[in-house]
Amino acid sequence: MSAGEPEPEQGPEPGTVRPGGRTARVRAAVLQAAGDVLAEQGFAHLDLGDVARRAQVGRTTVYRRWGTVTALVADLLQDMAEQSLPRTETGSLLGDLRANARLVQRTLTDARQGPLFKAVIAAATWDARTAEALHRFYDTRVAEWAPCVRQAADRGEVPEDTDAHEVIRAVSAPLYYRLLTSDVPLDRAAADRAAEAAAAAARAGAYVRHHKRT
Amino acid sequence: MSAGEPEPEQGPEPGTVRPGGRTARVRAAVLQAAGDVLAEQGFAHLDLGDVARRAQVGRTTVYRRWGTVTALVADLLQDMAEQSLPRTETGSLLGDLRANARLVQRTLTDARQGPLFKAVIAAATWDARTAEALHRFYDTRVAEWAPCVRQAADRGEVPEDTDAHEVIRAVSAPLYYRLLTSDVPLDRAAADRAAEAAAAAARAGAYVRHHKRT
Repeated sequence: MSAGEPEPEQGPEPGTVRPGGRTARVRAAVLQAAGDVLAEQGFAHLDLGDVARRAQVGRTTVYRRWGTVTALVADLLQDMAEQSLPRTETGSLLGDLRANARLVQRTLTDARQGPLFKAVIAAATWDARTAEALHRFYDTRVAEWAPCVRQAADRGEVPEDTDAHEVIRAVSAPLYYRLLTSDVPLDRAAADRAAEAAAAAARAGAYVRHHKRT
Repeated sequence: MSAGEPEPEQGPEPGTVRPGGRTARVRAAVLQAAGDVLAEQGFAHLDLGDVARRAQVGRTTVYRRWGTVTALVADLLQDMAEQSLPRTETGSLLGDLRANARLVQRTLTDARQGPLFKAVIAAATWDARTAEALHRFYDTRVAEWAPCVRQAADRGEVPEDTDAHEVIRAVSAPLYYRLLTSDVPLDRAAADRAAEAAAAAARAGAYVRHHKRT
């Protein structure tokens, strides 16, 4: 079967093939191709037929399984969240946040991942479904790292009722903000400063949960 | 002269009319229309002819003066930087940063300004000239507020060699990050927390300038 040609409508039902089988290989190839297009050309140039050709997968498969560009990007984001590295545990809040900040900084300065994230963030500003998928991606990543703040609270490094998710978000925020609003390089010093600032603010109680005012 | 029709090539040279004269009124109308299109439809829908029609200004004037959509957006950003409110001085770092955070929060949640900023940030991810203009906008706004950190250093609230620009950027970062990566409302509590976190981190020395390692 040549790339770009519709493939025969046959084979197992979606979801009935074990992970690592043909279905998983097709998904991996298609998501790789979709990520390549996003990184190289942006969301506006994403086209299911083009992705099928790049992935050397039948167009019918891509249209049947994903249907729309938006659904494809949502699946890509879900896959990225699942594939993300587990958090590093260093034994101190500053060490853990620094590991998180450096991971974010490496991702955003990666030649493929950086443009890919910019493209998806841009698309999320005008496409509600892409925004939902992007929000889920960050929720997943933040939840993966939040336990390091709760461990720090157990060790007495930060107040007991510190909002762990807000601390993790505070580490990423200055890195994304620099990426999107300045031409200052996003270097490791920026990552370490982001971690240090978040840790200092957390220690000072800036992320203690807001209690309802009476 | 009807809107949308080329106007006669006459009148004073650009730049020779005093501010407040016809040139300034045309610019104000065109930038207002450009901002409206950005806020309502996004950068991709921005068209000089459409802007001229909305602004009730001759197409020729718009093409001659701005030439490209990118140049028009750059001029809009320059005007926004010039029109921005001067900083508030409260006498304490936390008070000043809170005023800044609330200003940013009000801007980003404004029905017109919020979508406008999202549209320009998105366009800056793929258009280098828009990115340059956006960076200049933020540099201008950060420079306007940076003196409050230097005043805090003079009062002994933060270390002497605190990077004032980094502190101001730290206030905005979590607000933009929340706007772009989550569906959690950007409320005043978020603004106050951003100010409190940046002030606490600054006091702890997290924004002290990096000295060259030897």
